[in-house]
Amino acid sequence: MDTVIKSKENSIIKEVKKLNEKKHRDLKKSFIVEGLRFVREALESDFKIQYLFVSEKNYDKFILKELKELIKKEFQVIKVTESILKDICNTQTPQGIVAVVQYKEVAWKLTKGFYMLVDKVQDPGNMGTIIRTANAAGALGVIITKGTVDIYNNKTLRATMGSIFKIPIIFEDDNFSKIKELKKNGFKIIASSLDTEHNFYDVSLNEKLIIAVGNEGNGISDKIVDISDTKVKIPMPGNVESLNVGVAAAIMMFEYVRKMM
Amino acid sequence: MDTVIKSKENSIIKEVKKLNEKKHRDLKKSFIVEGLRFVREALESDFKIQYLFVSEKNYDKFILKELKELIKKEFQVIKVTESILKDICNTQTPQGIVAVVQYKEVAWKLTKGFYMLVDKVQDPGNMGTIIRTANAAGALGVIITKGTVDIYNNKTLRATMGSIFKIPIIFEDDNFSKIKELKKNGFKIIASSLDTEHNFYDVSLNEKLIIAVGNEGNGISDKIVDISDTKVKIPMPGNVESLNVGVAAAIMMFEYVRKMM
Repeated sequence: MDTVIKSKENSIIKEVKKLNEKKHRDLKKSFIVEGLRFVREALESDFKIQYLFVSEKNYDKFILKELKELIKKEFQVIKVTESILKDICNTQTPQGIVAVVQYKEVAWKLTKGFYMLVDKVQDPGNMGTIIRTANAAGALGVIITKGTVDIYNNKTLRATMGSIFKIPIIFEDDNFSKIKELKKNGFKIIASSLDTEHNFYDVSLNEKLIIAVGNEGNGISDKIVDISDTKVKIPMPGNVESLNVGVAAAIMMFEYVRKMM
Repeated sequence: MDTVIKSKENSIIKEVKKLNEKKHRDLKKSFIVEGLRFVREALESDFKIQYLFVSEKNYDKFILKELKELIKKEFQVIKVTESILKDICNTQTPQGIVAVVQYKEVAWKLTKGFYMLVDKVQDPGNMGTIIRTANAAGALGVIITKGTVDIYNNKTLRATMGSIFKIPIIFEDDNFSKIKELKKNGFKIIASSLDTEHNFYDVSLNEKLIIAVGNEGNGISDKIVDISDTKVKIPMPGNVESLNVGVAAAIMMFEYVRKMM
């Protein structure tokens, strides 16, 4: 028998609502995903689910039909009113179902392949798109420096289109110890920059590669440039200052895909 | 002596406010751009400016200093209150300056090069990013089918980062007469699709090329597929359904750039 909650004052609801703020997500090590499609991705992944909240109206359709095979005893399914769902998601148009998912430590690999390094990117849409593209390009993982936008905020999650559950995300520390570990194991860093004459397409790409992109306004930070092996510029025949960072990352990642084919 | 308007009931203000709606933009054939950087791009372009609205607070800094060399007699500079500026931009945080810019018919070329064809893309951010990337890649222009998101809405404009003023935008009709004209002149259409086994990287790219991408959910519409020369799929080593449309467009455009170098 599933639980039913009808009051916004319920302690579980109060706690879950707080997950809309980064500091509470980091404290509870869990985040919210919303909507049938996204919740399904979470249930199919090896991430641990804590709660599933579903509106009374959608219970039969979502829980008893659509997601039936994916519902497990390890997590609580909780029926709530539409209005509580709105409250949980912090949105005016909730999509009938919400999962609370736990952060997951990921194992990273030192095998041949490439990592996408994201340095202080600020826009959630750009961040999410980079994760989605990295997943599509078969990246070993996405490495994120401190000061980068939170990947568990709603907008980033949505832009990943479920890739958040499929590709390792590695949080780098202030000393870049993980990047240094990769370099010791033969990885080279290629850094996207406007401040170089090296044409990206002329540079040979190491099989073990870290592709780095930086902040929308300021580019890659000096500390990352310092540990990079090559700075490269994507040639732009047109008259523009720069590319969108998600686009630049995609062009570089898929050039790696093309060359390794 | 510049004009000053202090009342929201002023008829110019009332008319300009309406430009936040597509139907009024199309009627008046003009659109709004906001913020110093974007207004500067407009003034530096060969688009015709109708009005420049500036908040009293920013008048000296923006009009008498920053933009001094770009202010011409052909358009009116109008000082307004901060609150009228908010009203015009339909935003809580106006950036002190707004230009009303007229639509511009563009000449298109039949020379060697490529066009980006955008078929029924819905997201303003994606649309704007494609325009920006096409400009960077040196495209001859961006062709837009009916049913595609309006390029003059605020979000699209912002995502173009000024490229809206730098690259021809061509609005296709129901009979695709412009695309057919290009085909008669030797252009080939390569269409991005999930429903093909043709690997994009294996296909030779015609020097005169139209690169087509489609709607976020449904891809390219049948009518465009019918007039295409080749359907291609960007190979995705990772386990995802599809790429973001702005990313797919960028990968294809920059592969053209790389090959023609």
